Amino acid sequence: MSLRPPHPLAVSLGDPAGIGPEVVAKCWDSRAQFGLPPFVAVGDGHSIAAVWDGPIEVVDDPGQADAAFDRALPLIQVPAAGTDVPGHPSLAGAHCSLDALELAVGLARSGSASGVVTGPVSKQQLYAIGFQHPGQTEFVAERCGISPTNVVMMLAGPTLRTIPVTTHIPLREVPDSLTAALIESRARAALRGLQRNFGIAEPRLAISGLNPHAGEGGQLGLAEIEVIAPAIATLAAEGWRVTGPHPADTMFHARARAAYDAALCMYHDQALIPIKALHFEEAVNVTLGLPIVRTAPDHGTAFDIAGQDRADPRPMAAAILMAARSAAMRAEAA
Amino acid sequence: MSLRPPHPLAVSLGDPAGIGPEVVAKCWDSRAQFGLPPFVAVGDGHSIAAVWDGPIEVVDDPGQADAAFDRALPLIQVPAAGTDVPGHPSLAGAHCSLDALELAVGLARSGSASGVVTGPVSKQQLYAIGFQHPGQTEFVAERCGISPTNVVMMLAGPTLRTIPVTTHIPLREVPDSLTAALIESRARAALRGLQRNFGIAEPRLAISGLNPHAGEGGQLGLAEIEVIAPAIATLAAEGWRVTGPHPADTMFHARARAAYDAALCMYHDQALIPIKALHFEEAVNVTLGLPIVRTAPDHGTAFDIAGQDRADPRPMAAAILMAARSAAMRAEAA
Repeated sequence: MSLRPPHPLAVSLGDPAGIGPEVVAKCWDSRAQFGLPPFVAVGDGHSIAAVWDGPIEVVDDPGQADAAFDRALPLIQVPAAGTDVPGHPSLAGAHCSLDALELAVGLARSGSASGVVTGPVSKQQLYAIGFQHPGQTEFVAERCGISPTNVVMMLAGPTLRTIPVTTHIPLREVPDSLTAALIESRARAALRGLQRNFGIAEPRLAISGLNPHAGEGGQLGLAEIEVIAPAIATLAAEGWRVTGPHPADTMFHARARAAYDAALCMYHDQALIPIKALHFEEAVNVTLGLPIVRTAPDHGTAFDIAGQDRADPRPMAAAILMAARSAAMRAEAA
Repeated sequence: MSLRPPHPLAVSLGDPAGIGPEVVAKCWDSRAQFGLPPFVAVGDGHSIAAVWDGPIEVVDDPGQADAAFDRALPLIQVPAAGTDVPGHPSLAGAHCSLDALELAVGLARSGSASGVVTGPVSKQQLYAIGFQHPGQTEFVAERCGISPTNVVMMLAGPTLRTIPVTTHIPLREVPDSLTAALIESRARAALRGLQRNFGIAEPRLAISGLNPHAGEGGQLGLAEIEVIAPAIATLAAEGWRVTGPHPADTMFHARARAAYDAALCMYHDQALIPIKALHFEEAVNVTLGLPIVRTAPDHGTAFDIAGQDRADPRPMAAAILMAARSAAMRAEAA
């Protein structure tokens, strides 16, 4: 299986005042070391030039990026004021980050890019310009004509992949938000994603419990008996290789991880604590359930260190690599 | 600082049908490799002989264990039926495990043992014989004249220590169980424990949030604003070095861990997921807030593999070593 997708990847820069431009540029600098295939940056070239003095080559479409990639960072320029200062976000910058995201998704939808890698945006800034979605993921889903409820977020690192069933809600609301239907829907999206994006023909999904010790037979909560176990039974009856409900605290050591391809977790921190504890610099946010490949580094805009040459490009490189592998996998299967 | 405590440690064998006797015997076998100081097993010698053919020397008190330790595993025998079969727990075995625990704690209380390490018991079996405590920790607390609410469980590994504020309750009950007073009480016990047991003069405690992203300024829950931050302010005003509320998912990577001595977490899995993901074989359960030193390996009776020579002694060895260090630390400070 080749790592190289048929076309370059489109990498949106995210907020121009964040670390997105810097880490994308650094990825191009270290493209050989990271083993990165050609990609094209999508955003405002000024935001890169403000933090990096390497060569930029403006192109019109990803097709031109292949030839340019050896000699310069290919860039598709979006209209922008060009006045953003690293570390000082603005509403104009938020518009720019949204334009870049929209263009990058369009390039992948049209097939001229093999996938999208999205740089970090500021949700606060996006909300201030009227952005209606909880995050980039839901926006990408909408642009692809998919209901946000049918896409799932996977955090993927070298030895662990996790998927939260519920995401950005107060912990208090988690127990009543869990239904067998929701767990089944997330599980199917995860399992199909493991097949399509990771080439695992018969994926194994470990499903966590909600309560300590997975409820200890009902002593410490009933969600396992009333909701999670029935969902697992339904999925198993469909032929999927699913196990659980597992006590969450003993799911993530090395031996336990070897027994599954991904872990379906009941809430945000149950999924994100282990992946970030084990793979902080390498964890990639992968959106499953889309017609296109989409990944993102699992960090934010980091305005506090933007423009100081301190941003670590490894998470962005990991996101580009994973998108490349997934795109190559899908192209091969098609 | 010497690793060696003034007196031998008392190690209760736990349920005679579990893996406790096997791992204690294996620790004696590998005492040089693990660097273990003298300890005395407390329990039924038959349960050791059933799974191990090394030398056992019955002694009357820990004082005799020092001399015996080089040539045999010293044992303080408790009255027992002696008919337990590995992997097949019985009510007689539960009585035996409770007698061993009680005797070991008594030896530490009297000062003839420098601390207690407790082998794994079966809560189901203990409940069946009328045991009224949630677990061994609460029993030990009561025998020491301490209210169980004033002792805390710490999970300690080589690069991370965590303490859950709430423990064995359904996740649904966690938000309403959190009060500023409870967080403060657990934090103080943890901080004093870091001083007494670990010799850290000015311990740094990182305190987690409850909700995703620590509530994201109230967008994802109010516990951080209403309960956790006020508790942190109170503790800081007392002069303790406390920080938070931190988003739980970014608290446990290597760089984050370097900034604190222990993490106070709001619920069971928030504390146990990271410690077991990072340090599954080395995590030790330490009880803080007691007049005596008490540790335990962080695993259960494992009846399913008892008597098969498959049990890993490393967690028990880690528990013995940590008890020895803590006891030596306390003796030096006294």
